[in-house]
Amino acid sequence: MKPIQVGLLGIGTVGSGTFTVLNRNQEEIRRRAGRGIEISMVADLDVERARGIVGDRARVVADAREVIANPEIDIVVELIGGYGIAKTLVLEAIAAGKHVVTANKALLAVHGTEIFEAARLRGVMVAFEAAVAGGIPIIKALREGLTANRIEWVAGIINGTTNFILSEMRSKGLDFAAVLKQAQALGYAEADPTFDIEGVDAAHKATIMSAIAFGVPVQFDKAYVEGITALQAADIRYAEQLGYRIKLLGITKRRQHGIELRVHPTLVPSQRLIANVEGAMNAVVVQGDAVGSTLYYGKGAGAEPTASAVVADLVDITRLHTADPDHRVPHLAFQPGSLQDTPILPIDEVVTSFYLRLQVADQAGVLAKITGILAEHEISIDAVLQRESAEGEKQTELIILTHDTVEGRMRAALAQMQALPTVLAPIVRIRKEELK
Amino acid sequence: MKPIQVGLLGIGTVGSGTFTVLNRNQEEIRRRAGRGIEISMVADLDVERARGIVGDRARVVADAREVIANPEIDIVVELIGGYGIAKTLVLEAIAAGKHVVTANKALLAVHGTEIFEAARLRGVMVAFEAAVAGGIPIIKALREGLTANRIEWVAGIINGTTNFILSEMRSKGLDFAAVLKQAQALGYAEADPTFDIEGVDAAHKATIMSAIAFGVPVQFDKAYVEGITALQAADIRYAEQLGYRIKLLGITKRRQHGIELRVHPTLVPSQRLIANVEGAMNAVVVQGDAVGSTLYYGKGAGAEPTASAVVADLVDITRLHTADPDHRVPHLAFQPGSLQDTPILPIDEVVTSFYLRLQVADQAGVLAKITGILAEHEISIDAVLQRESAEGEKQTELIILTHDTVEGRMRAALAQMQALPTVLAPIVRIRKEELK
Repeated sequence: MKPIQVGLLGIGTVGSGTFTVLNRNQEEIRRRAGRGIEISMVADLDVERARGIVGDRARVVADAREVIANPEIDIVVELIGGYGIAKTLVLEAIAAGKHVVTANKALLAVHGTEIFEAARLRGVMVAFEAAVAGGIPIIKALREGLTANRIEWVAGIINGTTNFILSEMRSKGLDFAAVLKQAQALGYAEADPTFDIEGVDAAHKATIMSAIAFGVPVQFDKAYVEGITALQAADIRYAEQLGYRIKLLGITKRRQHGIELRVHPTLVPSQRLIANVEGAMNAVVVQGDAVGSTLYYGKGAGAEPTASAVVADLVDITRLHTADPDHRVPHLAFQPGSLQDTPILPIDEVVTSFYLRLQVADQAGVLAKITGILAEHEISIDAVLQRESAEGEKQTELIILTHDTVEGRMRAALAQMQALPTVLAPIVRIRKEELK
Repeated sequence: MKPIQVGLLGIGTVGSGTFTVLNRNQEEIRRRAGRGIEISMVADLDVERARGIVGDRARVVADAREVIANPEIDIVVELIGGYGIAKTLVLEAIAAGKHVVTANKALLAVHGTEIFEAARLRGVMVAFEAAVAGGIPIIKALREGLTANRIEWVAGIINGTTNFILSEMRSKGLDFAAVLKQAQALGYAEADPTFDIEGVDAAHKATIMSAIAFGVPVQFDKAYVEGITALQAADIRYAEQLGYRIKLLGITKRRQHGIELRVHPTLVPSQRLIANVEGAMNAVVVQGDAVGSTLYYGKGAGAEPTASAVVADLVDITRLHTADPDHRVPHLAFQPGSLQDTPILPIDEVVTSFYLRLQVADQAGVLAKITGILAEHEISIDAVLQRESAEGEKQTELIILTHDTVEGRMRAALAQMQALPTVLAPIVRIRKEELK
């Protein structure tokens, strides 16, 4: 049988990884898919560079629409990124009856609902394993492997750049800015790292996992997003003393009246497996009511790990594309007619415990005052650590771990504490999750 | 649409877990599967007990063949276990045109080839996610999530009983026999724990993973199997001093002229995530050429974790059963016509590094003699640890870590060392894997 024909839109890092992997493992992939898979067309604005990569094994064009218009092409792989032209092209490919594979988390987190609906109406598949956690098959696990479960929460290290930075900050005791520079020099962070370090990339991925876990539409605009730029080495050190590591987690959790969807630095108990995920690696923990806790770990970025996910999607489509469109695995795990409009809760209604660090005057009654404010807001305290002040020092540091509380309450308590004349600097507050 | 009808053969721990999960999460599952899934018939020899579990929500019969013969039943779930009647019933269910879901690793590791071929000819699906690592969707990851990769090796903690025992031996410094008793009292080990502690259960699971990873038939009879009964607390302690933990691993590895398939206690570097999997938990590491190392972690046994996998298979079948049988996900990841007969290598040709512990006379020249024998067999040494002998003691212990070598060579070297008059007790040898 003639190999299934794939057209690539954009051949940067992931695109050339996909080309390489498909070629190197073509025999193995054919044995699995039941049919060869061949990239026969590539569209890239930089035609010369693209030719340099694919040689004469694929036709290279500058205009993506030539690929979409080609009736020989069965599957279009979109690796352009962003919400702009990528969205237009994906919708055009669907309209042309092509199956689509994409690694574009931003696009799906924002416009997923529109795209999946278009695909449903046209009877084509949109596959996106590469959009979350690179080569780790987490989309498949959530969408197919854990379908028996009422999923309770998902929490993941889903951005390698920030995990690399946090690992370095911890192991070397450095502050954020110093490590960021080093990460950029090593190629672990981009020249403009904003999307990574501000948590936006992780929030895109958490949004997609949230939809799949709970059967709700993707709604990136409702996600709470906080990055790692304000993190200080001191807090990583104190957290460690208290038995915690700080990770940037994407978290989505089922609550009685809504869903939490948030990205922020988080204290996690050191003995949890996910707390020990170091460097640029990714890991996702899924808590289901039947299976309990499961964890998925691997490389979340890079040419070949991401290509691994893109090609797995190509194999899935090749294996299943003749199935009648009403009997396929639904894009977002739940059947299109079965999505619910459970609201995403505002951050003030989110429940977590907290780590607080206060720079306070070293005088009698300060601790009483602060714990009094917490008690007033019904926030109970789990542990207190007071740094011993040096001889003659007039201020000291107070670390407080709280039990679970509603964020709004903590915000109110923080404002009151901050206003105390004995609190001498902005209070550091980092959320904490036991993940059990 | 009428719910898909499921018949359960055997309603023990996993069976009642499956019944419970399907009932508790039926609405969520229906939203995912696109159709309800209902256990409408149960066969169990203990009819009264079975009725006590299912009440009037399913018809209970003593004869499994009544379930198979019922034209209303779409899917038969085999939870009887073993190679005997379970095999006959699975083949009869296939012959009757039923899709089959089974958690029976022993059956598939030994008779999988025959069963999958029968299913192919009859155009039905046999799903078995629950057969390996309980609720962890590792079969799906290997069969679908990692299809882009040339898989290099798979190594897993795939037996919870033995991992619980090893964790207890390490944390409490106890020997095997003491911990086994305690594990039995706690329900972590069965009254007859042979299959677990001798490594047979892990070998069944490794055999299945081997077939899926490399596209070869299941061949349990070729697996090398060594359990944990001979492990001593001393070796766990020495391993720890050297930066290793001892785990019972099921390993299958691609080599140039064949495939390794083996289960044995293994030293693993302490900093590897899998070395930190404690208690009855399971974890599997898969090394692929594109994705690199990925890890899958969760509960490998128990009523609801195993039911999670059984029900996921039911959802898969419900979603995809109308697809034309030639365009489905192949049972063993590779298309039936594409299996290869790559040989499983005999243990003498397996390559690992080794941990050796020798009880030796505390006299000059002993170490030279022993290292001389290793050199003669071209086995190079990575590290040596000599316990300081106490005042007046005439013997001491020598721990040697080697680099990778062929097992046959090590066997020959061991025989020679064992014959030395200065070697005073049987040499302990445990294989070591760096897993990188």
